[in-house]
Amino acid sequence: MDITSHTHHISQQYNIELEAIRTHLSEMGGMAQRQVNDAIQALIDADIERAEQVVRADTKVNSMEVTIDEECVRILARRQPAASDLRLVIAVTKAITDLERIGDEASKIARQAIAMNKDGQSPRGYIEVRHIGGHVSRMLQDALDAFARLDMDLALNVVQTDKQVDMEYATAMRELVTFMIEDPRSITRVLSIMWSLRALERIGDHARNLAQYVIYLVNGEDVRHANLEQIAENLHPKSE
Amino acid sequence: MDITSHTHHISQQYNIELEAIRTHLSEMGGMAQRQVNDAIQALIDADIERAEQVVRADTKVNSMEVTIDEECVRILARRQPAASDLRLVIAVTKAITDLERIGDEASKIARQAIAMNKDGQSPRGYIEVRHIGGHVSRMLQDALDAFARLDMDLALNVVQTDKQVDMEYATAMRELVTFMIEDPRSITRVLSIMWSLRALERIGDHARNLAQYVIYLVNGEDVRHANLEQIAENLHPKSE
Repeated sequence: MDITSHTHHISQQYNIELEAIRTHLSEMGGMAQRQVNDAIQALIDADIERAEQVVRADTKVNSMEVTIDEECVRILARRQPAASDLRLVIAVTKAITDLERIGDEASKIARQAIAMNKDGQSPRGYIEVRHIGGHVSRMLQDALDAFARLDMDLALNVVQTDKQVDMEYATAMRELVTFMIEDPRSITRVLSIMWSLRALERIGDHARNLAQYVIYLVNGEDVRHANLEQIAENLHPKSE
Repeated sequence: MDITSHTHHISQQYNIELEAIRTHLSEMGGMAQRQVNDAIQALIDADIERAEQVVRADTKVNSMEVTIDEECVRILARRQPAASDLRLVIAVTKAITDLERIGDEASKIARQAIAMNKDGQSPRGYIEVRHIGGHVSRMLQDALDAFARLDMDLALNVVQTDKQVDMEYATAMRELVTFMIEDPRSITRVLSIMWSLRALERIGDHARNLAQYVIYLVNGEDVRHANLEQIAENLHPKSE
């Protein structure tokens, strides 16, 4: 899949507009990813200053969503895109919603970091935050790269990783519940870790959504509720 | 705002297509709302059969999303809608994403109902589930009505109610944490209620999103991150 297939138009201005929404999406993605990484680090280090920065910076991600959305609507209204251009614009409209919600989830983690600065550190769960956080941050990076390069294999890889993250999340939650039962005095603090893990799991879901838009963009097929094995099979048919 | 403003087109077929996505959105909304109500009832009654029905029916909501999305893309590609028609199609594309996620949250509540059937009833929290559940179900109903009638006042009302739900949610969570600390044996069961309350709070957020699309549709203004008081003021300017 050639990335430049989106940029052959008689109108030079139209090309520039399509390139612009791709670039802005990348920028917004980078911003959301920094928010996620900073929130995880703030939680692990109990760094209240960094956490407050994350909460404040959320408005930037939000206003970026509105800006790109308006760009997309303008293109739809003026250029009346067809075929792959139309798919691109639609995919970007959807992607920015997920990025905005990733920003929201990062804020939630940052708020838990602030709460833990007050209530004290949790006696458990940091290894899980670091581990699942690392996975999710990588998924987001890969999903954004897949979008930029229209890389179907990378996108499928993100969708597959999400299943693994969901399993690790479930295991971590079970262990934390067991720990809370053994040490009820830690409940409030362990709950902060649990809410943060849940936010990470949601970020993983949004990264998976982003990857699915890439598949839609390349395939022209809506795969949100389709069977993953089927898509991989269609993409790389097994030899007889 | 006259609902029929969307239906004056030379092409009779185009009118029919625009009407169809509105009708299908209403149907999908009704389906999502039934899922939410059934999930709440299943949780309160520990009704495992009803809960399993909710989990199963989620695929219907999902496939409805794909169908309507395809209808919207087809209209964008073939009809190249402008002005308010374009806004309608875009709003519907966004709305179905929220309805699909409402379905997901209803499934999560249903899964907690199934878990509680196994672990036993929670000693606390049902009043809160009933109360916040009632609010959220009403918000969803109002948001869907606001969409069908393009009723800006009703939409603003939904956005305002969401703030109240968020506060009630925070209070309920604090009380449940306190209860867990006093009675650690109940942790697993009380957590099921807490996850369910969080799902309800998310459903409220999605209903608020739906209401905001209505405001966007009527106003042509993106209000997702705007100040609510400002919008209300613009809509009903105070007399001097």
